[in-house]
Amino acid sequence: MRIPETMRAVVKAREGRGAELQTLPVPEAGPGEVLVRVRSCAICGTDVHIYQWNSWAAANVAKAYSGLPRILGHEFSGEVVGVGEGVTRVKIGDRIAAETHLPCGDCYLCRTGKGFNCQNIRRFKNGVYAEYVLIPGFSCEKLPDSVNYEIGSMLEPFSVAVHGVGKVGMVGDSVAVIGAGPIGLFTVKLARAMGAAKIFASDVSDYRLDLAKKAGADVVLNAGRSDVDVVKAVREGTGGLGAGVVFEISGNVKATKQAFELLRKCGTMVMTGLPSEPLVLDAGTDIVWKAATIYGIHGRETFASWEISKSLLASGVVEIESLATHRFNLFAEYEKAFELAEKGLAGKILLLPE
Amino acid sequence: MRIPETMRAVVKAREGRGAELQTLPVPEAGPGEVLVRVRSCAICGTDVHIYQWNSWAAANVAKAYSGLPRILGHEFSGEVVGVGEGVTRVKIGDRIAAETHLPCGDCYLCRTGKGFNCQNIRRFKNGVYAEYVLIPGFSCEKLPDSVNYEIGSMLEPFSVAVHGVGKVGMVGDSVAVIGAGPIGLFTVKLARAMGAAKIFASDVSDYRLDLAKKAGADVVLNAGRSDVDVVKAVREGTGGLGAGVVFEISGNVKATKQAFELLRKCGTMVMTGLPSEPLVLDAGTDIVWKAATIYGIHGRETFASWEISKSLLASGVVEIESLATHRFNLFAEYEKAFELAEKGLAGKILLLPE
Amino acid sequence: MRIPETMRAVVKAREGRGAELQTLPVPEAGPGEVLVRVRSCAICGTDVHIYQWNSWAAANVAKAYSGLPRILGHEFSGEVVGVGEGVTRVKIGDRIAAETHLPCGDCYLCRTGKGFNCQNIRRFKNGVYAEYVLIPGFSCEKLPDSVNYEIGSMLEPFSVAVHGVGKVGMVGDSVAVIGAGPIGLFTVKLARAMGAAKIFASDVSDYRLDLAKKAGADVVLNAGRSDVDVVKAVREGTGGLGAGVVFEISGNVKATKQAFELLRKCGTMVMTGLPSEPLVLDAGTDIVWKAATIYGIHGRETFASWEISKSLLASGVVEIESLATHRFNLFAEYEKAFELAEKGLAGKILLLPE
Amino acid sequence: MRIPETMRAVVKAREGRGAELQTLPVPEAGPGEVLVRVRSCAICGTDVHIYQWNSWAAANVAKAYSGLPRILGHEFSGEVVGVGEGVTRVKIGDRIAAETHLPCGDCYLCRTGKGFNCQNIRRFKNGVYAEYVLIPGFSCEKLPDSVNYEIGSMLEPFSVAVHGVGKVGMVGDSVAVIGAGPIGLFTVKLARAMGAAKIFASDVSDYRLDLAKKAGADVVLNAGRSDVDVVKAVREGTGGLGAGVVFEISGNVKATKQAFELLRKCGTMVMTGLPSEPLVLDAGTDIVWKAATIYGIHGRETFASWEISKSLLASGVVEIESLATHRFNLFAEYEKAFELAEKGLAGKILLLPE
Repeated sequence: MRIPETMRAVVKAREGRGAELQTLPVPEAGPGEVLVRVRSCAICGTDVHIYQWNSWAAANVAKAYSGLPRILGHEFSGEVVGVGEGVTRVKIGDRIAAETHLPCGDCYLCRTGKGFNCQNIRRFKNGVYAEYVLIPGFSCEKLPDSVNYEIGSMLEPFSVAVHGVGKVGMVGDSVAVIGAGPIGLFTVKLARAMGAAKIFASDVSDYRLDLAKKAGADVVLNAGRSDVDVVKAVREGTGGLGAGVVFEISGNVKATKQAFELLRKCGTMVMTGLPSEPLVLDAGTDIVWKAATIYGIHGRETFASWEISKSLLASGVVEIESLATHRFNLFAEYEKAFELAEKGLAGKILLLPE
Repeated sequence: MRIPETMRAVVKAREGRGAELQTLPVPEAGPGEVLVRVRSCAICGTDVHIYQWNSWAAANVAKAYSGLPRILGHEFSGEVVGVGEGVTRVKIGDRIAAETHLPCGDCYLCRTGKGFNCQNIRRFKNGVYAEYVLIPGFSCEKLPDSVNYEIGSMLEPFSVAVHGVGKVGMVGDSVAVIGAGPIGLFTVKLARAMGAAKIFASDVSDYRLDLAKKAGADVVLNAGRSDVDVVKAVREGTGGLGAGVVFEISGNVKATKQAFELLRKCGTMVMTGLPSEPLVLDAGTDIVWKAATIYGIHGRETFASWEISKSLLASGVVEIESLATHRFNLFAEYEKAFELAEKGLAGKILLLPE
Repeated sequence: MRIPETMRAVVKAREGRGAELQTLPVPEAGPGEVLVRVRSCAICGTDVHIYQWNSWAAANVAKAYSGLPRILGHEFSGEVVGVGEGVTRVKIGDRIAAETHLPCGDCYLCRTGKGFNCQNIRRFKNGVYAEYVLIPGFSCEKLPDSVNYEIGSMLEPFSVAVHGVGKVGMVGDSVAVIGAGPIGLFTVKLARAMGAAKIFASDVSDYRLDLAKKAGADVVLNAGRSDVDVVKAVREGTGGLGAGVVFEISGNVKATKQAFELLRKCGTMVMTGLPSEPLVLDAGTDIVWKAATIYGIHGRETFASWEISKSLLASGVVEIESLATHRFNLFAEYEKAFELAEKGLAGKILLLPE
Repeated sequence: MRIPETMRAVVKAREGRGAELQTLPVPEAGPGEVLVRVRSCAICGTDVHIYQWNSWAAANVAKAYSGLPRILGHEFSGEVVGVGEGVTRVKIGDRIAAETHLPCGDCYLCRTGKGFNCQNIRRFKNGVYAEYVLIPGFSCEKLPDSVNYEIGSMLEPFSVAVHGVGKVGMVGDSVAVIGAGPIGLFTVKLARAMGAAKIFASDVSDYRLDLAKKAGADVVLNAGRSDVDVVKAVREGTGGLGAGVVFEISGNVKATKQAFELLRKCGTMVMTGLPSEPLVLDAGTDIVWKAATIYGIHGRETFASWEISKSLLASGVVEIESLATHRFNLFAEYEKAFELAEKGLAGKILLLPE
């Protein structure tokens, strides 16, 4: 395949709301690098923050990412079209997705098997909402034959959900999933696939709760409705005990407080949502006397989570294509896509470059 | 309900093959005891050993059980018809199954949460192949409404399988189940329900392998056929790696040796089968260099395994009724039932007193 | 030994500060019960709350205990002088301490091996600051020969610390113990005994920090001093990483917030302290992005924690007698003892009936 | 420092017993490589096998290593004197030891955090019994300031022991260490440092058992003496229960069989020894009914085990210098050293190049 000299890209050029379409040079693969032709992208919550340029974005983009201007996006799949010196992991023509957190390999966390939470973690220099993207060979994950590019572009967030569910056995137990955005929906699917006996899902959007129901939730609860008491509903639905396993994925502090309240004694809480406000707990009742176990989840276990994800999708044990509810053209419709994402009336939104 | 003075019972009266029908007095519930009208029984491998009076039976019945004569059987369900002083756990009319291993409550194992492997473990004084049976109130497990007596009489062996699968996460992983008798079949069902990506089952009976296939195994392997190499088949079916999780339930030492060989490096082996011959391992290759993790499974975790079992069956997450392939009248047909059990051409065999 | 008809007891007779000496009948051991002649008692933080009758006491005594009037105290050791019907666990003359949390044995938590956090947990009907106390036979723990009554009366709180340290491996790791009261001091001793490479201890009392130093802490930090920054000190003392394991035992919310901040990425937090005010966390930074693991600790694992405690003390692997810094006569000096306890200028305070 | 063109090296030149001193060119550090001036070496059991050229060596050297001729040895420490392109981990002058198992980085095991058991594991191309050695930069571990070269050359086998003890909590428990060679002795030291209440050590050499006693074993048992029954002694010394944790490090199959017998019900067995003969178990009694947990240990967790090792030695929590019982000149006395190693009348034997 002939690689052109320039490409289209959706660029966050400056602070403030929005992004713009630019024409940029196609980069070349240096030593250890891989050039990928982007085939499908997805929108993550952090992309929306950066698009909106809210306080989180202002505080974090310069630090965690490499400042502006910057091509938007990080969830994607594509085809390898260029391979730099020393890369043996993939070859031209391979279909891949990629881990977007880059461990340093040398810090205490990396040396002790916790590279996913590397002390010096970096992100891709540039984003993926473009025709081509340059990434480290190290981060490539080949797609199984039965996983198409669209599903492939959801592998990264799906692997976050896989990381979370891997913390705790759920077979025969009651599970509450707080927040039914994409990672919440993946979690419902996974809890179902892992033998949970009863799954509660809560959100403030009926649209998402409908998706949660279809994904396998037994009971869906709209926390925004005045006649719904999520804590009471989960307790009553579990014989007064509370849920044995709770996944907090909403990032809403009020919901998080409730998540602790509806957790069973000796239960396990898995926290993936990033709250933007301070969380106020009654630590004595919510954690200590409850003898709770709590896990914070950051990203994916590199690459154990990816291996499990690929295996689940390739074998058909978990199906996620139905959660990709909307598709837009990456270059012509990205603004429309972000507007939909802001409204929350979607499962996973895909952006396709062609 | 009026309780009669005498009852029919299938009694192992003396050493040697067989059992006989006897009329015995119906016992009365003393302090802490519960009298149960038996509604369904099941045949376990150890019942067959005792019926046959093979070398295992000769060596173990006097020790682990309380010698002869003895009513046969231990897997059952029934209705509570008498409740002794101090029993608060159940009341007359309750539908129950029961844990048959009785911990002393006072030894080191019991005091440290391992009562299922109590240093002084006892079994029921008498067996359950009768119209009535007297058991400790402590051991009763109430059946959920949606679990009928026939399913209820399989709860005890099902909980052994639940105990085994609880040792290891299987989501997205490859699983081999060695031995497709009832506990093997339960294990296949459970592995499927817990998100295993690929399940291999092996046995020497095509009848049982057909059940394994229906229970959810992806690949079934008849280890008795000269053209089948179980080790090779599992390795090839896992990209050369071997199975990540292996359940050894056959109790056959040749199969157990193969189970170690087909285990992946850093894989987990769960051993439930009781081999009657010495097991010969190359411990360096099979355990040490492989960095294997091995768990021995004895009985059920009292009563965590039971809670999970009841929840899985009541919620419909796992279905086991289809594995009860044969039903016989307890008093009129027990000999026929044991003959079938000896041939192995059955899933779970139920014995019904009426 | 002749048992008298009446006994002296330190009684919380009514709401408000203080307690009074009363003469009460010596109870008799009914079925399942054991009468113990008290030989040593200890003061726990909750005893101080009840003595002071602060807001925690007002809110909890009626609920968790059985209201007033009530004999104070729960940590003790003594000699068995009466044994009710059906008790086989101990006999007259046995030297014992006792578990003070009484599980129901029948709830979901009890049936699944979590009786220490029983859904219907009860405490002793009456306290132990008396010449005799009546307790369930079930709760008795025989003292090893080499554990005297004074050490024996610290077994219950020591077992809380044992429960906490059992959650996490510390060999070669950095450990921070926040709060150097008795359980904090026990934890320092245990961390040292379990191979921690570097132990930080913080408190607001130099007296207690001096005890922590003697107990084995490498670095002690007075959080109340304006020139001490606990978070910074722990980070600098761990090469910038933070402590791998943090024990929050202070119950102070400001200290708890700092405890989260000084925890290493992927580190483990064990929370035993009961904060009386709301805890405000930045859950994103403190838990989620940090990929923290958090355990709440309530009481002791019955009776695994006790077995470990007894073994550690009997073998001399851990020595705690030196942490009993003050001894008072139970009946003549209890007011003086509580005043000292309120000031915090003590390790463990013992109350001796004779 | 000027690097000479040639160096002395102890070379296994051909099959059959022995090794010879050769003069070889000093290699140069290519990309990713590091040239190290060797300062201390140690003798491992596999070095003795290769020196003797026994059946294990004949079967494994061509496969696991890269055939003959080959410089002997792999345990060492030294000073970095040359750094190839792209190496950032160390610089000239750094004092290091090195991991000798080289993971491929790309197989399923490597990608899932189990690189220490890599599907394609390689060893150093050449051994370390020389004045200089060329190793991958990746494998270097900098020595803490307080760890001298002699101790540093024991870090690799010490980390095997660290890997093993990391599998299981031992605080307050009884521990049996079967085999008191260097890794057994390290394990005794570690068990002591991790709070084991009672440590049994067995071997057939009184010399080694004396070292075990000094290392902290409470009870030493010479399994070769006709009046010693190791199984009985451990059972009696643990109130009839057996040891809660057993480390099998002897590689002797008779001892391994006994190790299973003396293990407590629900106990944990850690197997590090490589038996050269088939191991015959009664799997029903030894594993299944015992509900044993068994871990095979291969090498070190890269590099979590190393981090713990360095921390333990640098902090002084564990001292191992006293286990280096003999020192020889590498080039002048290697034959004498191997003869001593064969007799087993030594702890760790060091070979010093100057």
